Amino acid sequence: MTTGFFGDIGKITYEGPESSNPLAFRHYNPDEIVMGKRLEDHLRFAVCYWHNFCWPGLDPFGGQTFDRPWFDDTMEAARLKADVAFEMFSLLGVPYYCFHDADVRPEGANFAENTRNLEAIVDYFEGKQADTGLKLLWGTANLFSNRRYMAGAATNPDPDVFAFGAATVKTCLDATHRLGGENYVLWGGREGYETLLNTDMGRELDQLGRFLNLVVDYKHKIGFAGTILIEPKPQEPTKHQYDYDVATVYGFLKRYGLENEVRVNIEQGHAILAGHSFEHELATANALGIFGSIDMNRNDYQSGWDTDQFPNNVPEMALAYYHILQGGGFSTGGTNFDAKLRRQSLDPEDLLIAHIGGMDCCARGLKAAAAMIEDGDLSGFVDQRYAGWSAEENWGMLSGSRSLEDIAARVEAENINPQPRSGKQEYLENVVNRYV
Amino acid sequence: MTTGFFGDIGKITYEGPESSNPLAFRHYNPDEIVMGKRLEDHLRFAVCYWHNFCWPGLDPFGGQTFDRPWFDDTMEAARLKADVAFEMFSLLGVPYYCFHDADVRPEGANFAENTRNLEAIVDYFEGKQADTGLKLLWGTANLFSNRRYMAGAATNPDPDVFAFGAATVKTCLDATHRLGGENYVLWGGREGYETLLNTDMGRELDQLGRFLNLVVDYKHKIGFAGTILIEPKPQEPTKHQYDYDVATVYGFLKRYGLENEVRVNIEQGHAILAGHSFEHELATANALGIFGSIDMNRNDYQSGWDTDQFPNNVPEMALAYYHILQGGGFSTGGTNFDAKLRRQSLDPEDLLIAHIGGMDCCARGLKAAAAMIEDGDLSGFVDQRYAGWSAEENWGMLSGSRSLEDIAARVEAENINPQPRSGKQEYLENVVNRYV
Amino acid sequence: MTTGFFGDIGKITYEGPESSNPLAFRHYNPDEIVMGKRLEDHLRFAVCYWHNFCWPGLDPFGGQTFDRPWFDDTMEAARLKADVAFEMFSLLGVPYYCFHDADVRPEGANFAENTRNLEAIVDYFEGKQADTGLKLLWGTANLFSNRRYMAGAATNPDPDVFAFGAATVKTCLDATHRLGGENYVLWGGREGYETLLNTDMGRELDQLGRFLNLVVDYKHKIGFAGTILIEPKPQEPTKHQYDYDVATVYGFLKRYGLENEVRVNIEQGHAILAGHSFEHELATANALGIFGSIDMNRNDYQSGWDTDQFPNNVPEMALAYYHILQGGGFSTGGTNFDAKLRRQSLDPEDLLIAHIGGMDCCARGLKAAAAMIEDGDLSGFVDQRYAGWSAEENWGMLSGSRSLEDIAARVEAENINPQPRSGKQEYLENVVNRYV
Amino acid sequence: MTTGFFGDIGKITYEGPESSNPLAFRHYNPDEIVMGKRLEDHLRFAVCYWHNFCWPGLDPFGGQTFDRPWFDDTMEAARLKADVAFEMFSLLGVPYYCFHDADVRPEGANFAENTRNLEAIVDYFEGKQADTGLKLLWGTANLFSNRRYMAGAATNPDPDVFAFGAATVKTCLDATHRLGGENYVLWGGREGYETLLNTDMGRELDQLGRFLNLVVDYKHKIGFAGTILIEPKPQEPTKHQYDYDVATVYGFLKRYGLENEVRVNIEQGHAILAGHSFEHELATANALGIFGSIDMNRNDYQSGWDTDQFPNNVPEMALAYYHILQGGGFSTGGTNFDAKLRRQSLDPEDLLIAHIGGMDCCARGLKAAAAMIEDGDLSGFVDQRYAGWSAEENWGMLSGSRSLEDIAARVEAENINPQPRSGKQEYLENVVNRYV
Repeated sequence: MTTGFFGDIGKITYEGPESSNPLAFRHYNPDEIVMGKRLEDHLRFAVCYWHNFCWPGLDPFGGQTFDRPWFDDTMEAARLKADVAFEMFSLLGVPYYCFHDADVRPEGANFAENTRNLEAIVDYFEGKQADTGLKLLWGTANLFSNRRYMAGAATNPDPDVFAFGAATVKTCLDATHRLGGENYVLWGGREGYETLLNTDMGRELDQLGRFLNLVVDYKHKIGFAGTILIEPKPQEPTKHQYDYDVATVYGFLKRYGLENEVRVNIEQGHAILAGHSFEHELATANALGIFGSIDMNRNDYQSGWDTDQFPNNVPEMALAYYHILQGGGFSTGGTNFDAKLRRQSLDPEDLLIAHIGGMDCCARGLKAAAAMIEDGDLSGFVDQRYAGWSAEENWGMLSGSRSLEDIAARVEAENINPQPRSGKQEYLENVVNRYV
Repeated sequence: MTTGFFGDIGKITYEGPESSNPLAFRHYNPDEIVMGKRLEDHLRFAVCYWHNFCWPGLDPFGGQTFDRPWFDDTMEAARLKADVAFEMFSLLGVPYYCFHDADVRPEGANFAENTRNLEAIVDYFEGKQADTGLKLLWGTANLFSNRRYMAGAATNPDPDVFAFGAATVKTCLDATHRLGGENYVLWGGREGYETLLNTDMGRELDQLGRFLNLVVDYKHKIGFAGTILIEPKPQEPTKHQYDYDVATVYGFLKRYGLENEVRVNIEQGHAILAGHSFEHELATANALGIFGSIDMNRNDYQSGWDTDQFPNNVPEMALAYYHILQGGGFSTGGTNFDAKLRRQSLDPEDLLIAHIGGMDCCARGLKAAAAMIEDGDLSGFVDQRYAGWSAEENWGMLSGSRSLEDIAARVEAENINPQPRSGKQEYLENVVNRYV
Repeated sequence: MTTGFFGDIGKITYEGPESSNPLAFRHYNPDEIVMGKRLEDHLRFAVCYWHNFCWPGLDPFGGQTFDRPWFDDTMEAARLKADVAFEMFSLLGVPYYCFHDADVRPEGANFAENTRNLEAIVDYFEGKQADTGLKLLWGTANLFSNRRYMAGAATNPDPDVFAFGAATVKTCLDATHRLGGENYVLWGGREGYETLLNTDMGRELDQLGRFLNLVVDYKHKIGFAGTILIEPKPQEPTKHQYDYDVATVYGFLKRYGLENEVRVNIEQGHAILAGHSFEHELATANALGIFGSIDMNRNDYQSGWDTDQFPNNVPEMALAYYHILQGGGFSTGGTNFDAKLRRQSLDPEDLLIAHIGGMDCCARGLKAAAAMIEDGDLSGFVDQRYAGWSAEENWGMLSGSRSLEDIAARVEAENINPQPRSGKQEYLENVVNRYV
Repeated sequence: MTTGFFGDIGKITYEGPESSNPLAFRHYNPDEIVMGKRLEDHLRFAVCYWHNFCWPGLDPFGGQTFDRPWFDDTMEAARLKADVAFEMFSLLGVPYYCFHDADVRPEGANFAENTRNLEAIVDYFEGKQADTGLKLLWGTANLFSNRRYMAGAATNPDPDVFAFGAATVKTCLDATHRLGGENYVLWGGREGYETLLNTDMGRELDQLGRFLNLVVDYKHKIGFAGTILIEPKPQEPTKHQYDYDVATVYGFLKRYGLENEVRVNIEQGHAILAGHSFEHELATANALGIFGSIDMNRNDYQSGWDTDQFPNNVPEMALAYYHILQGGGFSTGGTNFDAKLRRQSLDPEDLLIAHIGGMDCCARGLKAAAAMIEDGDLSGFVDQRYAGWSAEENWGMLSGSRSLEDIAARVEAENINPQPRSGKQEYLENVVNRYV
């Protein structure tokens, strides 16, 4: 028995590239074997709770556009919302979902009531998970919507807010642990500043470092086996957020001794807002050893705010998964659709259609990436480009056995006069276009 | 006896705010005492060699606009250039200058000739410094203009380029040491990538880390007492540069064990291109303990490339120096005008007028910043805002004596329900406007 | 008798530059004579209704932060809101205010109820205006917040929405006329598209052209003597808005024969979002003969969305008013503060403090601009720069008496070989800094 | 007999999608029939002269990287350059090329010598065209590189520069006419300003309008049958260019009575720099009736300057050609590769490889666009969305037979209360992904 929200739409199935059925997959066949692994196990799709079931269609200049029967702040509405959510996850056939505490439970009058409400929903989710086989990719605490967090949670000047936020994270980590979540995410949407005039940045960074250490300590204490993930974003809602991008987060983790404890959840839209390509952020996380998971969406290249659109550009997806696969693919991470409908997409079926398109786009991207890796033309080119470093004298410069003076003496003695070689960028771009 | 390049213009003097003489200072009186120190000693102005004496007025769509008698690649032209440069520094009355090797010497056929040319010019500069009292704020190597560096210097796939670059830095550090330079700068304008398709980012970062360690080791070996500075820039000329911004550089320094050896030289224009305000980068460097020096210019807010214009907005300068003074002011660093004339500003006097305006603008900014600090309204507000943390229970959350569970238990037991307080941003902005 | 919302704060008075009273003007003395006119009559300040009295502090990631006793959708609350609004206008001593219909009246069940509600409030405002002497700078219709407008008002694919929007504008123009409004504004926040895939741009432009013609015809019919103004904005809320910037609006007006009927209301923040400086948009409107009024705020240069902050940079204000005064100053237009508090600025006094700072900033800007004009150094330079065109042969090229062949023949015959002259940009920037 | 520059590379042929030959087309088969027309006749490819044969690899921070035997400013070098250029055009099998005067002839000492040099090269090109069958898509004058144009050509304050520029355009239009060029382009790279402080925008716009009228008059006089095209670009090299984007150019044409005489040449990279998508600019030109031709390249989405890269994203190309085909396809216009190698792409073959990739990308895009049009799902959806306007009462609102009062009366009488319908953006994006 279903809620009826999606009418008579049945489970979405794979029909192949020739299908023009908007409610079928054309490229995502979960059982297709790619590089020796099922596509489902590569992609590890998750659907987010918030954009799909909580966001009413607001934008800065307009009010609610979506009419959803569960838009009410009661436990009953929360259960109806969960019913529809798990129906949608099941129709799509994704293995995972993700949520914030505030997405799933009514807002209580205080911390204790919030906790009770959350626990009641976790009970309900346990049943849902058992019934459907769905799993939790990650849980997280919403430390940004309530007005108490308007000046930050961990970085708030008021220690009571820090305490309230920390307590809330504890309950969310407990919930994630109970539900078998494979990761726990922290997005610091208010951990930043609106103006430096009222901000002590050094102090706030220390607060944030301490907060994260508290979370990591607690994770170990309760035996949570998942990964703690930070999700970088440069700004919005605040003027500046401390978890600006992957490289900034890395420096932060090093500063507070957490680089082996915490990884990053990288969102395409946040990468764009930080002035980077998505693949840049992925490559950076690989290079620094902190890649964890992805929030899959796209940002409009002409908009200066977080548009959280469903991915639709296959060549971009191919490059993204190319880096992910080169780094060994996901371990605890996955592909979470942190994407929202346009506020004009009012029909229930739009929720399904949007995810179907996104899943197909990712599936095509991953398959193209796998072909690039298996053919090896790209990686072969790169290896060859740096091959000169394996010569002993050159290796010595990197390994530390040659000083600056040694090197200068050799350049002069041997009259070293390096000649540039073509970087072949257009050739390599054409190679990529063979696969996408 | 002078070169005559500046005609009969004499030393620029301070005439006070009412002057409308375009060749006089209206605000920069080097001997004015501000917060117990001469203005000259606060600002530590330097003028750069490259934009003023080497750049011919090229832009991506147009050729040379400036006619300068020293535009020739000979030692004789290099000496004439030096004569005019030191004349200009003296007319302006700045205490410091800065240069790249390629600015001051003709390009040789190979490394050895480059070195000889540089040494000959250093001899010449020694005499100039002795005659004029001018000092070297910093030297640096140009590892980006010559085509051998088109794919990077330290991060080049070709180890011979790494070697050539390293050898060149040795000669420039030697030159800086001989000339009593107070800092040595590395700007990694080609240390980045054009496309990830031909790039191994992890390997390149390791190359860059090694390169910097070689430089630091050599500095200690020769007893260079100055500071090694990295100058962040996000992109341009390459699509992405590894020294993206202050926070990224900090992570890099931590990764390669250099956070106590190397500091940052922050440029306003580069901050803007990285999506930050200038004061953000300054505050970040203060918070992370790596502030070194500044390259003073401004970037057009509507242009997506490095416009390197002379500063002219006093309120912005006031905020910049407010952060610099709050961090204790410059030690070895200073205010280097890394700014260039618009390519239509053809007259020799334009070189002077531009610097006069920039120096006046900085002087007004610093004096306003000093007044803000002395009055204490801003810092008092900030201290008060975080005052709650000094309570013992709150301090315990930061010092590590409270666990996440402890905190959660207390929030529940005490029913902590924090109430937001006004951030007073507009009030604080109005306070700033009292001083500028 | 007052509402008590602002406690015991009395009318804000001018105390002069040395005052540190946050609730006094330091630069805005309405009776000061500048270029022969009272400052109040130059600046023609207005305060907007929406940001101050309607916006609850929402942002895309957070809910209401402001607690205001009038936050309710009833006529009683609307009257309380009006009471507080007129109190604030009076405390600030501004001569004007501005509003949307949806700001001032409860949302009705249909068009007729909206109209009745609006008329009731207009009655109430008439009394308020009579009591306080306040005047209406402009009225406008909110054709963007309600979900019926999610795909546009005039440009909606559904003609019923066009009709509803048109009918609503009629009522708002009637209201503006009754209240003696000096202008009527149209901001096309939903007149654009989210995706070209579902959009017929040519058809939508025609709809928009027709809509505007309907409004102009009606204005003449009822004898409304004010100016019809379009407010350009490039995007947000939609991906693209048709009234992108001043130059685009000009082309639109020409296309639909309205260039002599409609002028522009230029907002600093919208200029920035369109990639322009504020003074660019003002200069463009002057050059094209369509300057009308300004919405005064500033946009954060590092944020990609409409931040609507209070102006605080005097040099920028000086350049803005320099262009306004050069164009002859305001006729029916004025300086409307379309600026909002930061959502953390919770205190009632923050509303006053923000406007005081903005008014002082504008006053300083206008006085500096007036001094620049009276001294004439800038305009004299510009006139001199183009002086060559007054020679008869040169004027002939512009007046149309010379053909391309004539000109080419003369260039060859006279061997014309133009020599560049310095553009003196830095000199001119320094001249500006004498005044700010 | 060839120059040997491209070694033994022969004419590039179509080998089909499975080919991995980097020197073969995989998708561009000129004779393939698409929508009843040969692919070559749809795409009308042209290759530009300047980036391929004139640009030495400079960027703002680095010098020449390319070694080309024709890099010399003599007539002999100009002929060698032409030999290699026509070889390359022939190897690629494109039907068209494009050039500026300054690309193809040595710079003379004055106007007369420039003209003689140009005429000599035009003679040479006539022979080349006859030998190869190549045709000229468009010619243009370089009015931006020489220092005489540093403050503009048509908009220069110095009337002598206007005259020199006008005379030069006459010679280039003559040359284009002689060579049978199908269009003549004006790109106003210096027709803008660096600072408003030294600029009279209204006067400069009038100069630009006059200049363009002179060109149009001359075109008619000599019977040039091609189209006059303006190429919009928002900025770079100047801070602001008057031909900012398509909508701005439209307003300019209307102002000077040229909207039926002049069309636009739209460049993808310039669209991006103006804050638009490429398809936005194409759709705008269609809607306004001024579409002419395209300059095909792409701009890096993370770079703030004109990167002029070869197109490589097929989904983007498909959307671009979808709009072009919907507007009826090219008449005199074509697809000109105004794209340049990365400065590290040193090998002669890189020139070919880059164009091959670009041509294949465009061919795939056009074929996908044709399929979208033939299937009609997208256009059918759009037509349906606006279908309500055909009802008589609704049509009356557009046709002018209903006044604002009529409409308001009807809304009230009929209690019109429009209900929003889904915009189906995600569905439409998925439809597009069926074809790309």
